[in-house]
Amino acid sequence: MKLAVGIDIGGTITKIGLVSEDGKCIKKTSFRTKEINNFSDYIQELYSSIESITDDPNSICGIGIGAPNASKNGTIETPANLKWEGKLNLVEELKNKVNTEIFLSNDANCAAVGEMMYGNAKDYKDFIVITLGTGLGSGIVSNGMLIEGFDGFAAELGHYSINNMGRLTGLGVQGGLEAYVSATGIKRTIMYMLSRYMNDSIFRGISFNDLHGEDITKAAENNDFIAIKTFEYTGKIFGEALANFVSFTQPEAIILTGGLVHSGKWILEPTKKSFEQNLLPFYRGKVKLLTSGLEDKDSAILGSAALVWKNI
Amino acid sequence: MKLAVGIDIGGTITKIGLVSEDGKCIKKTSFRTKEINNFSDYIQELYSSIESITDDPNSICGIGIGAPNASKNGTIETPANLKWEGKLNLVEELKNKVNTEIFLSNDANCAAVGEMMYGNAKDYKDFIVITLGTGLGSGIVSNGMLIEGFDGFAAELGHYSINNMGRLTGLGVQGGLEAYVSATGIKRTIMYMLSRYMNDSIFRGISFNDLHGEDITKAAENNDFIAIKTFEYTGKIFGEALANFVSFTQPEAIILTGGLVHSGKWILEPTKKSFEQNLLPFYRGKVKLLTSGLEDKDSAILGSAALVWKNI
Repeated sequence: MKLAVGIDIGGTITKIGLVSEDGKCIKKTSFRTKEINNFSDYIQELYSSIESITDDPNSICGIGIGAPNASKNGTIETPANLKWEGKLNLVEELKNKVNTEIFLSNDANCAAVGEMMYGNAKDYKDFIVITLGTGLGSGIVSNGMLIEGFDGFAAELGHYSINNMGRLTGLGVQGGLEAYVSATGIKRTIMYMLSRYMNDSIFRGISFNDLHGEDITKAAENNDFIAIKTFEYTGKIFGEALANFVSFTQPEAIILTGGLVHSGKWILEPTKKSFEQNLLPFYRGKVKLLTSGLEDKDSAILGSAALVWKNI
Repeated sequence: MKLAVGIDIGGTITKIGLVSEDGKCIKKTSFRTKEINNFSDYIQELYSSIESITDDPNSICGIGIGAPNASKNGTIETPANLKWEGKLNLVEELKNKVNTEIFLSNDANCAAVGEMMYGNAKDYKDFIVITLGTGLGSGIVSNGMLIEGFDGFAAELGHYSINNMGRLTGLGVQGGLEAYVSATGIKRTIMYMLSRYMNDSIFRGISFNDLHGEDITKAAENNDFIAIKTFEYTGKIFGEALANFVSFTQPEAIILTGGLVHSGKWILEPTKKSFEQNLLPFYRGKVKLLTSGLEDKDSAILGSAALVWKNI
């Protein structure tokens, strides 16, 4: 059986899995990214993890890695969510330890390749994947090819500005989409709605720091006015942005994945409504809005491993 | 010598040229699109024009056509700027008259292919061309391939909304970019500035209908406050939008072409300034803002002919 290793480097946790060509995660492990101060120690920990799930690291078909701020050249550049600074030679340093092909891409690009190989984008050559986590990530596939851009930093749609007077993102972009549509964004909107309305709400007694996405869904189910307004507002902005994205690459489908999607109809219905309302006439009825076809818990590993199958 | 025919279908004029592989327009002709009521008469006129500039229409390598609202399937769909309605089978009907390969694409896509073959995009695999005419058109090339989208309607960046409270475009898009950045958009901004300020201006005595783009450049050169404010405002919005576009496909270059570019420093300087200010940190210094490398008068014909050389 042909096997690849998929690695997802997150700010908090690094996940490593052994994946078959048909997209089964056979073995997996993880460790806390945050606890490792030194990048060469991190590479060593990565290698030990690969060893722990493979009989022989050199026998696998390849390693696929998804990471924030990954470039085309095997490096990670000044990642905001990782503690190591500067340009990190991830692929080169790992190659010194294991003799197999290594592919690196942005984590949201991996999600797109994963959906194309194993998920809900199997039938599409033109689609966009939006990952909704702490921030908002995206991967764009056009003509069946991942759009990576000049040096690998294409598809940074979380930083796309919806309004030059709007909220600031972590990178200082005014009106950047992820300041509205993401786990953090929706918490900010709860605060905004608390400022805007005087209605009773469970959120009058919860601080920003204590607020979690699931609470907002539960509150909406309990008919909390602030929670319902928050989802409507988020969906309206999200739908407008997605309609705008269509005018770039005219995807046949947009696939949503990540935590916020678990809010189900509360986020999806207003998003869909606003999306359809804002689509240009010649796009109407041609673009499907879907949720991920991959199981959340392994999707990042599968997506990274898919880089291997796509490239070898 | 290998020759192709390039055709540019505009709302007012249709241009037809005989083009060599190295991008010389050897012979050309044109006729008024507007004056032909019937689409089959139009096809006949097109064929007569092709005959008039070629010794034998069947001896040419192919015909490339740039047209508004061109689909991937050889049709033009409900074009706003043409008088014929519904889905027009342009390629099929022309093929009944001339036995050669025929390629059809959006006019701005042709401009992008033209820049790639003969113009300032020769060295780039990732770039965007923006055509500034009555409206704003665009062509996006990524990984060396034109992004056409699911059925050919990608890259409609004139309709990309910069602000959901903004001006309406002809298609009813609120805040659509071409309502600001185009020959029409800049005239609208003159009106806006006349509403906003009370300063003297040559434009206090000129109606919207009598206003022409060249007048605004001349007025700026004569230190007209309203004209200068108009260019500043247009450039600021344009630069913000272009910076946003970079977060999609991370082009190595953005190439500007069309009438508004003739305003030179008046439009280019504020655009460049705003563009640089709004670029995300990891894009800074990596994206060139250029003007077209093709001579304006033949650029549409060259771009359409380039479709042939690119595809055969």
